[in-house]
Amino acid sequence: MKKARVAFSGAIHEAVEIEGRLKLDDGRIVEEQEVVWLPPVEPRTVFALGLNYADHAAELAFKAPTEPLVFLKGPNTFIGHLGQTFRPSEVANMHYECELAVVIGKQARNVKQEDAYNYVAGYTVANDYAIRDYLENYYRPNLRVKNRDTCTPLGPWLVDAKDIVDPMNLSFRTYVNGKITQEGNTKDMIFSIPTLIEYLSSFMTLDKGDIILTGTPVGVVNVEVGDEVVTEIDNIGRLVNTIVGR
Amino acid sequence: MKKARVAFSGAIHEAVEIEGRLKLDDGRIVEEQEVVWLPPVEPRTVFALGLNYADHAAELAFKAPTEPLVFLKGPNTFIGHLGQTFRPSEVANMHYECELAVVIGKQARNVKQEDAYNYVAGYTVANDYAIRDYLENYYRPNLRVKNRDTCTPLGPWLVDAKDIVDPMNLSFRTYVNGKITQEGNTKDMIFSIPTLIEYLSSFMTLDKGDIILTGTPVGVVNVEVGDEVVTEIDNIGRLVNTIVGR
Repeated sequence: MKKARVAFSGAIHEAVEIEGRLKLDDGRIVEEQEVVWLPPVEPRTVFALGLNYADHAAELAFKAPTEPLVFLKGPNTFIGHLGQTFRPSEVANMHYECELAVVIGKQARNVKQEDAYNYVAGYTVANDYAIRDYLENYYRPNLRVKNRDTCTPLGPWLVDAKDIVDPMNLSFRTYVNGKITQEGNTKDMIFSIPTLIEYLSSFMTLDKGDIILTGTPVGVVNVEVGDEVVTEIDNIGRLVNTIVGR
Repeated sequence: MKKARVAFSGAIHEAVEIEGRLKLDDGRIVEEQEVVWLPPVEPRTVFALGLNYADHAAELAFKAPTEPLVFLKGPNTFIGHLGQTFRPSEVANMHYECELAVVIGKQARNVKQEDAYNYVAGYTVANDYAIRDYLENYYRPNLRVKNRDTCTPLGPWLVDAKDIVDPMNLSFRTYVNGKITQEGNTKDMIFSIPTLIEYLSSFMTLDKGDIILTGTPVGVVNVEVGDEVVTEIDNIGRLVNTIVGR
C-alpha cells in the first residue's frame, strides 16, 4: 500500500493511492493535482548519511568512511512532493541528492541486523539538497550545507515495507529538466539498511516516525532557479521538485 | 516570570513559580516535589555549540573555532529537572556540561545582532552530557557522543528574557555530589548570543521553541552511576540530575 499526507479542502488528510488517484481518510477520491502534498510522515528524528556510496565520496575527493557518518536534520528542511525549494542567492553550488528514505515503524533499541527489517514501516524518496560551497570537512557537513529551509523534499508516498521485496536492490535516478543526470542502485551503499539500524539503535533509541536518509551516489550537479528536479526510485516513487529564488 | 511544564495528577500542565511553589494553569498550587518536571519548552530544533569557550577547547586539546561549530540534537536526548540520565555501561568518560540555553520566541530570519534579543523568549539551564570516548574530531561530535537517550536535562524554568538584565554576564557552576567541579561565566563565550542568532538566521529560519545550547567552559570531569549532578546558572535556575545505570 502507498500512503500520503496531503492538504485538501481546508484540512490535512491521510490518503492512500488508488489507481493513480488519492483516496482520503474521509472516503473522498481526488486527483493528485488537487492537493498539496506534505511529507508522507511527520518527521521526528531524521538521520542523514554522509558519503554512504563510495563513488560519491570519491567525487567529493573524500575517502569512503569506515563507520557511518550520520548527522541530524531540522524540521525547517522538509517539504512534500511538488514543492518548491529555495536556492540561496549567494551560493555557487547547490546539488540534488536522490536518496532512499527508511521510515522506522516502532521503538528500536539494540536491534541486530537480522531483525532490523522488523522495525521498518516503509520507504519513501528523499532529495537531500546540499549547498556545496561550505563543505569544509569530511566528518561534519555544517548546517549551512545541509540544514537550509525547504532543502529536503520527501515523498510522494510512504510505501509499506512488506511491498518491497529487496530494499537493498532498488535502481534510482535523478532528472533535471527531463534529462537523467544521476543513476544508482541501493545495493551500492557502504552501510546497508540493517547495518544502519543496528548501529544507531546500539547507542540510542529509535522511535516510530524516525527517518534514515541513506545517502546518494555519484552524479551530483548544480541546479539553478527554474529547474525541475525529479528523484525517482523504482517501486518507491517519483518525487518532483522545483527550484525557486528567494 | 519563571515558567515550567510539569506532569501532575494525570495531565501535563504549564506552571509558574510562586514563592518557591508551582501555580498550575488550572489555578492549583503544588509543591515542587509533587510533580514530574518536563523540559520547560517542548523542544523543536535544538542547536548545540561545540567548543564555544576557549578554555574548554584547550582542555580537549582543540584550538578555538573561527566560526560557530553547531550541531543538532534529537528529541530522545531531553529530560526535565530531577530526572535520571542513563550512563552507558561500556564507556570510560561521561562528562556533564553546564550550558545556558537560549529559547527562541518567534520566527527569525536574517536577524542582525543588534535586534537579536527581540527574538529571545527566555533562558533555561542545560546539562548537555558528552560521551567523550568517541570524540574523534574537531568539527563533528558524532551521535554516540552527543545524542544518547536522556543525556540532555533541561530546566527547571523558562525564565522570561525581560527578567534577565545581561545574559552575557551570568555566572554558573556544576556540583557533583555537592562539590563544585566547574565554574564559568557566559561573558567568556567565543560566539555571543546575538552572534549565534545572526549566524543561524542568516542561512535558515529559526522558529518559536527552537533552543540554542551555548556551550560549556573548562572543568568537565567524569561522572558515575549514583552521582547527583547540579548545573546552576545565577538568576536562571538550578537543574538537578541523577546518573543511573542501564
